Order: sequence, then C-alpha cells, then structure tokens
Amino acid sequence: MNKLIYADNAATTPMSKSVLDAMMPYLTSEFGNPSSLHKAGATTKKALAEARETVCKYLGATHSDEIIFTSGGTEADNLALKGYMLGRSRKGNHIITTKIEHPAILDTCEFLEKCDFEVTYLDVDDKGLISLDDLKNAITPKTSLVSIMAANNEIGTIQPLKEIGEICRENGILFHTDAVQAIGHIAINVTEMNIDMLSLSGHKINGPKGAGVLYARRGLHLEPVIHGGGQEKNKRSGTENVANIIGIAKAIEDSVSNMDNHMTYVKGLRDRLVDGIMEIPYTHYTGHPEKRLGGTASFVFEAIEGEGLLLLLDMNGICCSTGSACATGSLDPSHVLMAIGLKHEVAHGSLRLTLGYQNTEEEVDYIIEKVKFAVDRLRQMSPVWEKLRDNVK
Amino acid sequence: MNKLIYADNAATTPMSKSVLDAMMPYLTSEFGNPSSLHKAGATTKKALAEARETVCKYLGATHSDEIIFTSGGTEADNLALKGYMLGRSRKGNHIITTKIEHPAILDTCEFLEKCDFEVTYLDVDDKGLISLDDLKNAITPKTSLVSIMAANNEIGTIQPLKEIGEICRENGILFHTDAVQAIGHIAINVTEMNIDMLSLSGHKINGPKGAGVLYARRGLHLEPVIHGGGQEKNKRSGTENVANIIGIAKAIEDSVSNMDNHMTYVKGLRDRLVDGIMEIPYTHYTGHPEKRLGGTASFVFEAIEGEGLLLLLDMNGICCSTGSACATGSLDPSHVLMAIGLKHEVAHGSLRLTLGYQNTEEEVDYIIEKVKFAVDRLRQMSPVWEKLRDNVK
Repeated sequence: MNKLIYADNAATTPMSKSVLDAMMPYLTSEFGNPSSLHKAGATTKKALAEARETVCKYLGATHSDEIIFTSGGTEADNLALKGYMLGRSRKGNHIITTKIEHPAILDTCEFLEKCDFEVTYLDVDDKGLISLDDLKNAITPKTSLVSIMAANNEIGTIQPLKEIGEICRENGILFHTDAVQAIGHIAINVTEMNIDMLSLSGHKINGPKGAGVLYARRGLHLEPVIHGGGQEKNKRSGTENVANIIGIAKAIEDSVSNMDNHMTYVKGLRDRLVDGIMEIPYTHYTGHPEKRLGGTASFVFEAIEGEGLLLLLDMNGICCSTGSACATGSLDPSHVLMAIGLKHEVAHGSLRLTLGYQNTEEEVDYIIEKVKFAVDRLRQMSPVWEKLRDNVK
Repeated sequence: MNKLIYADNAATTPMSKSVLDAMMPYLTSEFGNPSSLHKAGATTKKALAEARETVCKYLGATHSDEIIFTSGGTEADNLALKGYMLGRSRKGNHIITTKIEHPAILDTCEFLEKCDFEVTYLDVDDKGLISLDDLKNAITPKTSLVSIMAANNEIGTIQPLKEIGEICRENGILFHTDAVQAIGHIAINVTEMNIDMLSLSGHKINGPKGAGVLYARRGLHLEPVIHGGGQEKNKRSGTENVANIIGIAKAIEDSVSNMDNHMTYVKGLRDRLVDGIMEIPYTHYTGHPEKRLGGTASFVFEAIEGEGLLLLLDMNGICCSTGSACATGSLDPSHVLMAIGLKHEVAHGSLRLTLGYQNTEEEVDYIIEKVKFAVDRLRQMSPVWEKLRDNVK
C-alpha cells in the first residue's frame, strides 16, 4: 500500500468534508466578532446560537446556555474541575476520580491538591472498570465532585455512567464526565444519565482541533479558567473561535446521528482485527471484552517493546499508537496499563489500534499481516522471548 | 454602497487569503496529532516547529521555545499573569498594571486580587499615556510583574514600551505587554525592548480566531492555566490547534513584514477620515494625536448616544464600534474613556472606526458622509444638544 493507513483515531481524526464545508464561510466571508453590534457581528452571533442549540439537542441537555464552547477537551476538563471547585470557595473540598483518567483530569487534580483540595483516585479492575461500591465508600461529607471518564482513551473501557450518576444524585454530589472518547461511540444523554458536567473535543470525532465543549448544568457557578471580556456567559472569555464552534457542532451532530451505522461497521472491522491479532501467541487483549468503544483494539505483546513495534508499523505506512499520544517521549509505562495490573515489562509491549468509519477491511487485513510480521521480527531479537519460548517447549 | 464597509478592525479582521491557504493542508490532509510518533504526527510536529521559528524571528526573540501557542490573546494574557504569579508561590505578590488595560488583563488581575495578590492600577493622562514617574513610584520591594499594554484597543494610544522595559530591567521586575492591538502596527522587538512576556492574537491581524501567542523569555517558570498532557513544553496542555497555529504564524509574518507599506497606506486613510469627521462641531478626537495606532480613529460627539450612532451607521452598511467589542450589552461607559477623564455623559457618545489595509478612500468618504448625517440626525432628537447649541449662540 502506498498511502498511509490511519489507525490512530483515538489520538485524532481527519476532519470530515461536511464539517469543513460548514466551517468555510466562517473562515472567509463571515468573519465578524460575535460581540460586535453591527451586521457582521450579528451574523456570527446567530451562527453561535444555532451551534449551541445543536450541541444542546445532541447531548440531551435542556437549555442551550448549558453549552460552553472551549478551545478543546483539555480546557473543558480544566474548567469543569477548577471552575467548580475554585468557585465553591472550598466548601466541601473533596473530589473523587479514577486512576485511569486522561492527564487533563489527573494533572488538574494534582494542581488542585496543591491548592489544598483533597482527591481520591479510585482503582479499576483488570478490565479497567471502577467498582460502584468503591465509589460509594469513597464519598465523605466533604465530597463535592465526582469526575469519572465515560470511556478510556487507551483501552476503551466504558464506565457505568448512569449508575455513577444515580449514586452522585442520591448523595447530592456533582458528576462530571470526560466524554472526549465516548461521544459518537456510545449513547449519551446528560439528562437521563444525571450528568452535571461533560467534556467533549472536536478533533476526536472528525471535527476541528482547537474546539471543545463543556456542558454544565444550569445554575452551576464556575470560576473561569480564562478571565476577560465575559464571553460564554462569563464562563470562558476570549473572542469566540466561530469557525471551530460551527465545526464542532456539526461534528457532534454528524457523529451522534450516524452513530449506530458507523459503530456497527467499525465494530465489525475491529472484531476482524482483534481475531487476527489474537492469533499471535503471548498476546493479551487489554480493556473490557464487551464494555468497550467500538473502534478500540488494544493489546500487549509479551517480550517486545511497543516503540519498536510502532516504528516497524510506521515503516509499513501504518499509523497507530503505544498507549496514548499524550505523553510522547516519556519512558514510563502507561498509567492506565499499570492501573489494570500489568507488570512494567509487559505494559511496555502495548499497541493501540483505533479504527474509524474511514477504515476498510483491506486495511485491517494489511494491519494484521504487518503486526504479525513485526511482532515476530522483534521477538527474534529479544532475549526475553527466547526464555519465554523455551519455557513453553 | 451595497456591500458592508468594515471599519471595525480592532474588533476582528477578515482572514487573508495567504493565511487561509497556509492553513488549508492542516484542515484537510495533514491532520495528524503532533504528539503521535508516526508519520502523520511527524508532519504536523515539523509544521509546528517551523511556525514557532517564524514567530520567534518576527518578534525578535532568541529561542523558538520561548513561543507558546494558546487559544487566543485572552488566554495568553491569563497565562502571563496567573502563570507567572501563581508559579512564583507568592514571593513578591505585587503587580503593576494600568487602568486602561483590556478586560483580559483587568479581570485576571481582579481574580489574582481574590487570591491575595496586590495590584496597582496606574492612571493615564488625557491622551491615554501612563507616566513613567508614576510607574517608578509604584514599584515596591514586593513588585514582581509589570503588565502594560503596547497600544490601547479603544483609543489607540501607544505606550513607551522601551522605557518601561528599561525601568523594569533596572528594578529586576518582569515586564509583560499585551501587544494584541500593536503587532503589525508598530515595530516590536522583545529583545531590544526588554520585554519578558508578550501576548498576541491571530484574528486582529488577518489571521484566525482562536489563535494566540505568549512569548515568554527562556527560563521563566509558568504555572499552566490549562493542565493536562504537557504540550507546549508543559506550559499549555491540549492537542495543538495545528491549522490555527500555522495561520497565526503566517499572519504574524505577513503583518510584520508588510507593516511599513500597510501602515503608510492605512494612516493616510485614517487622517482623511479624521479630517472629515472633525468638521462636525462638538467633536473630540480621543487618544494621543501622534502616539497612536495607524488605523485607529476614535471620537466622542457631545450630546449623542454612541449606540444610536452605531445603529444608524449599521443601517447604512458601516460596521464600527462604540468603545470596544468586548462588553456588548453593558450600559457602563468605557473604562478607558473614563480613565482619560471624560465625563459620563460625553463618554457615552463615543465612536471607534478602525481601518485596515482592505479599506479604500471611497469607503472613507462614504463613512464621513454617513457619520455627519447620523450625528446631525441624532442631535436633532437630543434635548442636550438643544441646550448646548443655544449656549453657543
């Protein structure tokens, strides 16, 4: 194959034509500042309002002013956690989250700990699921906020959102979920699931980079992360990135309304990929076997280094990932793989292939062939593999 | 005229074709996450590095890692002030700024005051200039940071950056400047001007909305405003908005390298506009007569309301502003116009026309005609005007 085979859709996705088409007028003729009182401003102000309505509808929210546009999922996570906790003036300074959150949550929690907030990090089981009993037991009278991701970016495990939402509601605690990986992959309705805050990113769903959404239930007071001119009902200042806001709204509309079709197709591809790769000996399929994102195939191969694997696959035109894309250059094994109980040396041999609706069966078969070849090649060079193989004989 | 005449370039600007052309590959085929280790990621990582070199060069910085890409000028201002002050762990908790800063600075300072930092807000004279003696006198042993805008967004007054930089350097104090309005209008060189941190925005210089830059001199420790995956050398997390970063770099390159030509042309237009409008009686030209941005024409008309004026001009297809675009809906008179000593009732009659290189003489003449007509019309309806006119007779 000459072209690149892109199987890293959890890192980012190509922007769809429909999203770009929706954005183009706002990159060209419709350039007014939505805060301006003249016609050029009125046009973009109206477009923003429509985008907000669209996002509101597809999240199952009740009021469009519950939709805050941000520069991305990371900013949305920061605004949810810092905004809510700093806005509460430290009444109830306890947060509950998990050990397998994205760094946007974990690093924000670390910052909040420096500001004298307390954070409990829930364990997960070997499939990446939290225990609802653990959650209940972690709640104290000081707990203000629970932040648990909808689906994990490395292993695809989906948490029981509705049940978490019920526990939070019963205890009068706010529930935030980072749904960056989940939207467009699983059904999400903030009202039915008792979700008080939810973070989204555009570029994971064939929308633009630099676009995010925080859904925040009406009446929540959030201290802004970015102070200034008072845009986004005083919750997020800065001239609105109109084109990207139009783009993320279109991406949410497309991904949610086409979800069933896309996911049936993508799951089919993913299962074909998993069946093929699991033929390789000493391979483990990480994450939950059923409660997982449709496109996510994640593995660890014993006795190899993920980076070497990545390099060989890249030489064959396959774009994929070992762990997440967020900690490039780090030599530490993934915190997610450690949390599901893998040993250091095994966690190093991880591979994440994340498929999207643009991928084809032909690509999947090519990936299987090349992964088999690369793992075999790397193992031939590995003293660990020699020992492992000899033990088996 | 059938088309809109856009004379609100301080609020936002149309994106230039060269900027959009530079961005397009990154909105389409080159979509990789710069943190990904495969070819698709390597392509965008390289593009980011080149954009950083470009911005470094045109700001007169010495190292490209001094350039931090943000979601806009507002975020850059937040990162400069909060990042530096919170990162310093409250050693030297005093900031000096001015009364005429953009809300991105003023609201951030207000937040820092709530966090027990002390802020001194310098007065300006009736032309909008700070006094260097006031600055020197405001410095205490606790002063860590001076943040003074390069040029004002409402009245265009340019501050003596080099002199401020010298005073700060002599006193071992960091100097930040919000140069959102100034870049591409006046010569800026962070090294020669002793500027330690500088904020920029893309959409004020015919670049994209949702793109900003913070220049931060090497070695400065900044606590991130947005925590997460550690992008931008751990100073600003979140997947990079590659297209917009390429766009802002191109916009900076274009605006700085074409500055002399553009400004000669724009100043010519602006002077023609000012000459025409100053023929209207009881009109004051606000801001400094010489030390001001080339495209900014700002006025107050006695005995009229700016909003009515804006409405009449908008009906005639002219896009302009009364004060800034950032506090739409607010009935308070501009804090800038109050700071230069205007009375409430006079400040309400303000008009800001900000020209760019896309404007023409024909448009300027049309604006003059319509402003004269509109002011006359509004004064006919004004009891204040009746009294004023009678006094003169």
